[in-house]
Amino acid sequence: MKDLFKKEDIQLLWQSTVGLERETVRLNHDGTMSEQPHSKQWGQRGYHPYILTDFAEAQLELITPPCSTSEGVQNWLKATHQIVATTNEEFDELLWPFSTPAYIPEDRENIKVAQLSDPDEVAYREHLGVYYGKDVQLISGIHYNIEMNPEIMDQRIKEKMIDNHLPYTDQSFRDIKSAYYVEIGRRYLRYRWLLTYLLGASPYVAENYGTKLYGTPEQQRVRTLRQSRYGYRNHPNVQVSYDSLETFVEDIEKYVETDYLMLEKEFYSDLRFRKGAPLRKMLEDGIDYIELRNFDLNPLHPNGMATEDMDFVKLFVLSLLYIDKDTNTDDVIYGHELNQRVAEEDALLPCTEPEEAYKLLDLMAETATHLSNHEYLFEIIDTKRQQIKQPELTLSGQLVKNIEQAPSFLEYGLSLAKDYQQIYLKDNYSLHGFEAFELSTQDVLKEAIRLGVKVNILDIKDNFVQLSFKDQVENVRNGNMTRLDNLISYFMMENKVVTKKLLSENQIAVPKGQDFNDIDEAKYYYPLIEGKAFVVKPKNTNYGIGITIFDQSASQSEYEEAIKFAFEKDNTIIVEEFITGTELRFYIQNHKVLGIVERQPAFVIADGEHSIAELIDIENKHPLRGKAHFAPLTWISKGHEETVLLTKQGLTFDSIPPRDEKIYLRSNSNISTGGISIDRTDEVHPDYIQQAQAASKALDAYFCGVDMIVQDWTQPISDTNQYGIIEANFNPMITLHRYPGIGTKRPIGRSVIHGLFPELAEIDPLHDAIEYTESSSNTLKN
Amino acid sequence: MKDLFKKEDIQLLWQSTVGLERETVRLNHDGTMSEQPHSKQWGQRGYHPYILTDFAEAQLELITPPCSTSEGVQNWLKATHQIVATTNEEFDELLWPFSTPAYIPEDRENIKVAQLSDPDEVAYREHLGVYYGKDVQLISGIHYNIEMNPEIMDQRIKEKMIDNHLPYTDQSFRDIKSAYYVEIGRRYLRYRWLLTYLLGASPYVAENYGTKLYGTPEQQRVRTLRQSRYGYRNHPNVQVSYDSLETFVEDIEKYVETDYLMLEKEFYSDLRFRKGAPLRKMLEDGIDYIELRNFDLNPLHPNGMATEDMDFVKLFVLSLLYIDKDTNTDDVIYGHELNQRVAEEDALLPCTEPEEAYKLLDLMAETATHLSNHEYLFEIIDTKRQQIKQPELTLSGQLVKNIEQAPSFLEYGLSLAKDYQQIYLKDNYSLHGFEAFELSTQDVLKEAIRLGVKVNILDIKDNFVQLSFKDQVENVRNGNMTRLDNLISYFMMENKVVTKKLLSENQIAVPKGQDFNDIDEAKYYYPLIEGKAFVVKPKNTNYGIGITIFDQSASQSEYEEAIKFAFEKDNTIIVEEFITGTELRFYIQNHKVLGIVERQPAFVIADGEHSIAELIDIENKHPLRGKAHFAPLTWISKGHEETVLLTKQGLTFDSIPPRDEKIYLRSNSNISTGGISIDRTDEVHPDYIQQAQAASKALDAYFCGVDMIVQDWTQPISDTNQYGIIEANFNPMITLHRYPGIGTKRPIGRSVIHGLFPELAEIDPLHDAIEYTESSSNTLKN
Repeated sequence: MKDLFKKEDIQLLWQSTVGLERETVRLNHDGTMSEQPHSKQWGQRGYHPYILTDFAEAQLELITPPCSTSEGVQNWLKATHQIVATTNEEFDELLWPFSTPAYIPEDRENIKVAQLSDPDEVAYREHLGVYYGKDVQLISGIHYNIEMNPEIMDQRIKEKMIDNHLPYTDQSFRDIKSAYYVEIGRRYLRYRWLLTYLLGASPYVAENYGTKLYGTPEQQRVRTLRQSRYGYRNHPNVQVSYDSLETFVEDIEKYVETDYLMLEKEFYSDLRFRKGAPLRKMLEDGIDYIELRNFDLNPLHPNGMATEDMDFVKLFVLSLLYIDKDTNTDDVIYGHELNQRVAEEDALLPCTEPEEAYKLLDLMAETATHLSNHEYLFEIIDTKRQQIKQPELTLSGQLVKNIEQAPSFLEYGLSLAKDYQQIYLKDNYSLHGFEAFELSTQDVLKEAIRLGVKVNILDIKDNFVQLSFKDQVENVRNGNMTRLDNLISYFMMENKVVTKKLLSENQIAVPKGQDFNDIDEAKYYYPLIEGKAFVVKPKNTNYGIGITIFDQSASQSEYEEAIKFAFEKDNTIIVEEFITGTELRFYIQNHKVLGIVERQPAFVIADGEHSIAELIDIENKHPLRGKAHFAPLTWISKGHEETVLLTKQGLTFDSIPPRDEKIYLRSNSNISTGGISIDRTDEVHPDYIQQAQAASKALDAYFCGVDMIVQDWTQPISDTNQYGIIEANFNPMITLHRYPGIGTKRPIGRSVIHGLFPELAEIDPLHDAIEYTESSSNTLKN
Repeated sequence: MKDLFKKEDIQLLWQSTVGLERETVRLNHDGTMSEQPHSKQWGQRGYHPYILTDFAEAQLELITPPCSTSEGVQNWLKATHQIVATTNEEFDELLWPFSTPAYIPEDRENIKVAQLSDPDEVAYREHLGVYYGKDVQLISGIHYNIEMNPEIMDQRIKEKMIDNHLPYTDQSFRDIKSAYYVEIGRRYLRYRWLLTYLLGASPYVAENYGTKLYGTPEQQRVRTLRQSRYGYRNHPNVQVSYDSLETFVEDIEKYVETDYLMLEKEFYSDLRFRKGAPLRKMLEDGIDYIELRNFDLNPLHPNGMATEDMDFVKLFVLSLLYIDKDTNTDDVIYGHELNQRVAEEDALLPCTEPEEAYKLLDLMAETATHLSNHEYLFEIIDTKRQQIKQPELTLSGQLVKNIEQAPSFLEYGLSLAKDYQQIYLKDNYSLHGFEAFELSTQDVLKEAIRLGVKVNILDIKDNFVQLSFKDQVENVRNGNMTRLDNLISYFMMENKVVTKKLLSENQIAVPKGQDFNDIDEAKYYYPLIEGKAFVVKPKNTNYGIGITIFDQSASQSEYEEAIKFAFEKDNTIIVEEFITGTELRFYIQNHKVLGIVERQPAFVIADGEHSIAELIDIENKHPLRGKAHFAPLTWISKGHEETVLLTKQGLTFDSIPPRDEKIYLRSNSNISTGGISIDRTDEVHPDYIQQAQAASKALDAYFCGVDMIVQDWTQPISDTNQYGIIEANFNPMITLHRYPGIGTKRPIGRSVIHGLFPELAEIDPLHDAIEYTESSSNTLKN
């Protein structure tokens, strides 16, 4: 290992990927273990990449994919915790934040092992329960998987091989790389005791914890029961050598043959080399990554491990690479002994190996010097450094003190669990950790992750993700741009003139009119609109710019002025009849309307007491309102546009209008300027639903938003009740329907996943579920 | 009709649509009729909307769709003539420009009637040949179909009905509209003689023309033999009344019943009311348009009718609407007599009804006053006005004089036909009349029209067209953006970072590298590219802006400068390995490579005599070169960029380099700056073709252009012969392969049509045809 990496490589090594597995037990609110099965809302656990069951049926295992930053790992944990908690809320369940249980049923048979569909897996768990005790198996932890950045590691190994004139083959390369990983493993096992001292976090356990426990809980107060001799341990005869990858593999195989282990994966070590089963494959194919298993859940963090601690562990491992002395089996054995001693020490005993602790922390600081985020890392190291002499600042130290002040270990853990449940469900319209995506994509991803669809981020800025389920791979942009739509349909909707032509050809009503490229030609059109209500608009318009509406009729000169105005904004203008009525947005998937909303501009309802400014402030407290594009609804501004509209109504922000008066603050209904959507899906007359669906067929669109003006949408189409489709959108906004300001929430993101993966639609118990909005604010109740 | 239209309606009436049917006989170069069957290259004539056969197998009927401008009609004629002429060129055929044949085989049996697949249609033609004579049936003309702009006509009729308190029903409206059309018809028949005087153009016919002809050709010299009693005429007993639509329909039905006519369509009148068969349908459904049949081919125009004459006829018909006196059957009978007299007059006799002629022309001028293009129309009217007293300026007058000066009528016609064949094939890379589209779309449309696919222009500016064949409708943008591609595949190719990720996932070689959003992160990447050849570029780059290439290696500071430079152009940059080699473009359809080109920057090959400036001028005469984007290749400039590159080579535009030296004038290979493409389809090693096809599969693209850099494309892929795909294009340019500067032309547009309409692929005799380039210029021969 000596001199393998240069100092300047540390920045690339910092990009080494980490993935976490976090175990946790589902509880009832009284602290007893949940007897509910693993929810089918979480897809098929035999396949699920993120939400699985561990030993017990009520024991979840939440897995993150490998990420090059700790923040990325934490984001995944946020998302899976939120998704799990949403289901748990329905079943009144909580997640136990400690590694060790505070409550164990007297009859251990009441601990149900995970009811997986694979009978071998069930049998294996039954064996574990009998062999180790079901209570021991309930202990949960975190596995920290790390792969050294292969780009820089492979390059440096190759260079080293050339420097040492070693014959290069793919196999010789892989062997040398594995040897490096084994050396890292030995070093880790030698020095991991420091992590146990700092991050151990299971001082207590339920009083009726298996017979192996000594004394009473008060006497325990260890740093980590989970890592003590009373935690998760193989038979004492299982002693695996870390001399080389060969000895490691052969030893485990030997213990399986001699029945000390049922399966290779039953080898409970603080560190395992990983490639996938069987272990022997590693001998040929090399080690992919290492799995560090010595982490207790941090009960002070809702997701079981703080981002800073993830970074601390990463820096710890990377620093080991720069130690200029190689290790051997004796070091490993010494490390085991030291670690067990530290684990079993009183949590409030200061570090008994301060010299080595400071040496390691100094090494880490030196390593951090070459990283761009060294200030942040120095701070973390300093915090840990204090803990060497002040054990009450370590995790276990803090917990001991907190528990001693609480009514009981169980009560303390439950109060944390309840707080965390609130945190998991905060701003539940978003997908926690994925807020960099637009809300539509977040909604789709939430459903994907829930159902066990693998998510691969292709380009965050572009809202571009890859979703895969079993062998099927789907790429999705902006929530609903997918393989299910064809390219020309997209361009058909993008071009409003073409949209109108195609709808007309298919006998679907659009406002009658014509497009013009020439100002004179447009003028000559006057005889056809004389005496009628009509609109003049630029071909491409946003926020109504360049539009003139004549809701009765216009003189020739008024008309010509409107044309001139529109031509200032675009080379092509449209003159078309004006239909008075309500503008509805139909969200359509596979020619079926899934949601209809009406949009209204920002407004407040007066209460006769507060000024308009105050009413706005009250309204802006609504939980769905936030910064434009980051929340389903946007805070209402008190800016220029609002002032102008109030002035027109003879009002100011200080006015106190009479009770129940509805005061509009904008004339445009965009959500981004404070407007709201109102769900009308179950109210609109079927005639219009049928027309919207016919439009999506005419445009050959799988996903499509149809904007329609209807004179009276409660009544059927007739000569005196006109309607017209004004445009179609290839990327209709999901949030309008998913989180309307008023009315029923439509599960649009879910339908996207169901459409892409029909197999999941069939097994999803939420297939037809609908959530009802609770509107808390005054305006939104209207 | 009185007062139906207001003066200001004329501008909308001017948008009335016109469609032409132009008949013409295919000839051999010696003037004999072609014995070649109607080419299968022109699709299925039983269905073809544009290219059909008329009476004889060698008699083409070219049909235009209805267009609101005469220019639009002319454009369609240009296109169909060009397409027909392209096939004719292959079979050494010409199109006879006169209505009357100059050559008729002695044995009339040698005139083969059109061999349509419908036996009834063949039998009908045999009947015509027997009943009227095959020579008479050979006479060709133009039918001018016009529909009054229904928007303004319908509106005015409705207003009139309201004003007169007429009960409104759909049927009463249609009846009144038909009555107006019948009145227009009567007026036209009353006054059409003026058009016969001005536009009649068949003074002569072959000497052995049927027995009905009088005297010798020299004696004829009529204005129009086609409209004389010796032209195309029903039995004299067939006298159809134009009193009303009822009498019109009933009379024709009577003559069919009494066997004076075999079919309703055998009624040869100068004007027919049209709706589609059977005629009786019009009584219920109303008249759609009127068909004016009294036009000889104008032999002085390659397409049989000049645009000015189309406009003159349109103005003539529209002016009739403003006559304030209605007509009756007597007027029609008088009109028939007058027209026949004018038709049979000596072509050099001045107008015998000058008073009425001037009155009509005055009316037309008054009508034109209210049109925006009145200056243009006044000029046409003035030209015609002169012809009233100067018959030698009329069409027939000019022709008589030209033929008298020529060796013979046949020779004269043949020399025109040969000239026109040149005109039809000029700039044959374009589609005549459709030059407003980009070249790719023109190529696709040419193949569509050839094979009988209906073309409907949705948006010219967007190159957006609708193609339909039988019941199948396809919308196409930019030549190859269609329903066959899916939406997400488009976005996958649009985003270069995503493209690379997806290709990598599928084990397809792309230049190794990474994208960065942060300048520091990019810096830390240096250890991975130290000592290597690599490129730094903005994520989205055009024309190579912001790119730095290190073709050996770079120092840390050079690297950092390149990063900074790239970040000035984009928020995301890409650092990737640089593969030295040739950049190839693979054009792929349905995962099959159809063409491969190499691109080279603008260059000239010295001849040791001319200066570089002169060599450029010579090169720019190449027929494929033209204005950027309007020709397959672009004129080479003598601008700043070229000067800079010459200076670098120690040259100026005045330098005369030694013979055979290749002088590059640009460093970028874009076609729009004078670069050329070189077809390599049959030369590139199959390894790369396979990789390009694998890429199109990985990107799930139906149409796709893959850009690949290959070290040596003649050799297989190996460790020492690297390659990498640098990007994929969702809208690959067709012209690069269709008209390469050097090498075989690949029929890419044809493949688009074959892909969209597999039925046509099967019947197209050109399915596997390839054209070979004849490069005329010095450079392009290299």
